[in-house]
Amino acid sequence: MKKWYESVGPHGEIVISSRVRLARNYVKFPFPGRMTQEQQQALLESVASVMTESAGGREFTLTDLTNGDPLFAQSLMERHLISPEFAGSKRVHGIILSRDESISVMVGEEDHLRIQALGSGLCLQECLKAAMAVDDLLERTGEYAFDEHLGYLTHCPTNLGTGLRASVMLHLPALTEAGPIRDMILAAGKLGFAVRGLYGEGTRSSGALYQISNQVSMGISEEETIGRLSEAVNNILRSEQELRSRMLKERPEFADRLWRAAGILASARSISSRESMELLSQLRLGVAVGELGGVSIEQINQLLRDTQPASLSLLLGGGSLGSEAERDAKRAKMIRDTVKQVLVEEINK
Amino acid sequence: MKKWYESVGPHGEIVISSRVRLARNYVKFPFPGRMTQEQQQALLESVASVMTESAGGREFTLTDLTNGDPLFAQSLMERHLISPEFAGSKRVHGIILSRDESISVMVGEEDHLRIQALGSGLCLQECLKAAMAVDDLLERTGEYAFDEHLGYLTHCPTNLGTGLRASVMLHLPALTEAGPIRDMILAAGKLGFAVRGLYGEGTRSSGALYQISNQVSMGISEEETIGRLSEAVNNILRSEQELRSRMLKERPEFADRLWRAAGILASARSISSRESMELLSQLRLGVAVGELGGVSIEQINQLLRDTQPASLSLLLGGGSLGSEAERDAKRAKMIRDTVKQVLVEEINK
Repeated sequence: MKKWYESVGPHGEIVISSRVRLARNYVKFPFPGRMTQEQQQALLESVASVMTESAGGREFTLTDLTNGDPLFAQSLMERHLISPEFAGSKRVHGIILSRDESISVMVGEEDHLRIQALGSGLCLQECLKAAMAVDDLLERTGEYAFDEHLGYLTHCPTNLGTGLRASVMLHLPALTEAGPIRDMILAAGKLGFAVRGLYGEGTRSSGALYQISNQVSMGISEEETIGRLSEAVNNILRSEQELRSRMLKERPEFADRLWRAAGILASARSISSRESMELLSQLRLGVAVGELGGVSIEQINQLLRDTQPASLSLLLGGGSLGSEAERDAKRAKMIRDTVKQVLVEEINK
Repeated sequence: MKKWYESVGPHGEIVISSRVRLARNYVKFPFPGRMTQEQQQALLESVASVMTESAGGREFTLTDLTNGDPLFAQSLMERHLISPEFAGSKRVHGIILSRDESISVMVGEEDHLRIQALGSGLCLQECLKAAMAVDDLLERTGEYAFDEHLGYLTHCPTNLGTGLRASVMLHLPALTEAGPIRDMILAAGKLGFAVRGLYGEGTRSSGALYQISNQVSMGISEEETIGRLSEAVNNILRSEQELRSRMLKERPEFADRLWRAAGILASARSISSRESMELLSQLRLGVAVGELGGVSIEQINQLLRDTQPASLSLLLGGGSLGSEAERDAKRAKMIRDTVKQVLVEEINK
């Protein structure tokens, strides 16, 4: 079975992924901060049994992270399946994950449930639908904490209301390089959206990857939230698209840079996580604008994900992160094996 | 017929070329600064007729540079066949050149004659022999200005004595990077040698290419000059060789850098003269130490020579230098077409 990220979705040349997350708490338990360890355990088990039994056609598996392998937890974080706080939590906590990795439930985060749906490209509607189906399923096992005025009750007041956080991960190299990205971030803020670097709040952008998400979840319906965010994303898409075409036409050094990125990726013997992110970003842009061939957007997405420290170590069968020098050499090898096809394709032309 | 630089000579992994130059003046004419235009013309014609008629098995041709194409003069300079001063001279001046380009006579430089012999690798003895054969030939047409105490009389007192300048062009990337090159230059100076960057006196090194030459030509025979210089070069060779092996073994980032240079050269769409010199220098080192394959030292030597501005423009059939952007794009194409074989070889392994 294919993972969700192994195909490219709508507007895949710019949109990496869409995500919808719902925060929920049961009435039958105190809020996580006040739960006993027994209650935490009971919650995790009850959610896992519902999910793995009534799968709705998908296969779900529970991974108990309470005393789990920190390397595995880090790899889940790198794949945006869990938050850094969740990875480091001291409570009983675990994740229930569908086989294609598109649907997951974090149990024991700052709320009882964090229901998540991920999809490739711009597909917020589909993600909302999938998350709501799980939401309905889990509501059958117990009443949610809900207030007529405040909506769903959550640990953090910023999640009150729908408990919905919708976000889209965008690849915006042209807007980043040409400069307008700063103004767009400010403008998005005024419209109620937050734009952040790759790993959420407070992290700076790396590889020109950005996450845009709604900041408000009260006084607005789920559908309206998704609709407004989609509109904002479409505006950014158009600007990025336009700028890419213009740069390719007007700046000869633009194509040179894309090719050099491919050349370095196809030949380096050692490469850091940060440098590979930057160069893979250029490569992705080169393929998206049709300047480079021989590799697909899917393959580049996969490299962006698999060459992160924990994922790389797990994929290559190491039980530990190993030294940085070892990782840099393994990362370079993995990237080379794919990216050399860019040069092969050019030579065969 | 092959040009002299189309094969690799002794110690070719480090020594690019050897050169011997003899300065001579005839008694029958005043020194160049005091010659009339008619005398300058008569000198050029008489030397040319001797050389082209008594070729000694080689074919010589005269190129009169007096009103010549400045682009062609620049390309001769790039190939170290004439000096920058000679290229810009206002006098009647020309060069008589053997078909394999190994032997040349500049007529009308600061001395009447500058007899030159060039060879691939470390071959000072052979160069001296070739230059002296031409010297004997030209002496038959007129007595040389010679003083029992001062030796051959020359325009500049630094050339008095044998009139001999012997030099070796070396590729010393390991000594340059590890640092000892500075001390070696100082030490060479104390032994009576000068070490300079690629284009002679006062130019800084580019691409880790250095020229070492004798500074003294009085009170020392031709053979002794050549012998001492060969010894000094052999000492430098050993240090460079040793350091290269050590770097390859002890520094993993060393191989990475060599591969990245190949990757950029195989993919760039635009490259400046300076950058290509630096990267080709890394490539040459990579092939010399056996880390990179698919291209030969000869091919890299050829690229180092042919991608210089005037040579590039002439080779690609442009009548002028063109714009810098055009040259950078053409240079990148020429380099790519050769260097991509490094990656092809690796892929086919």
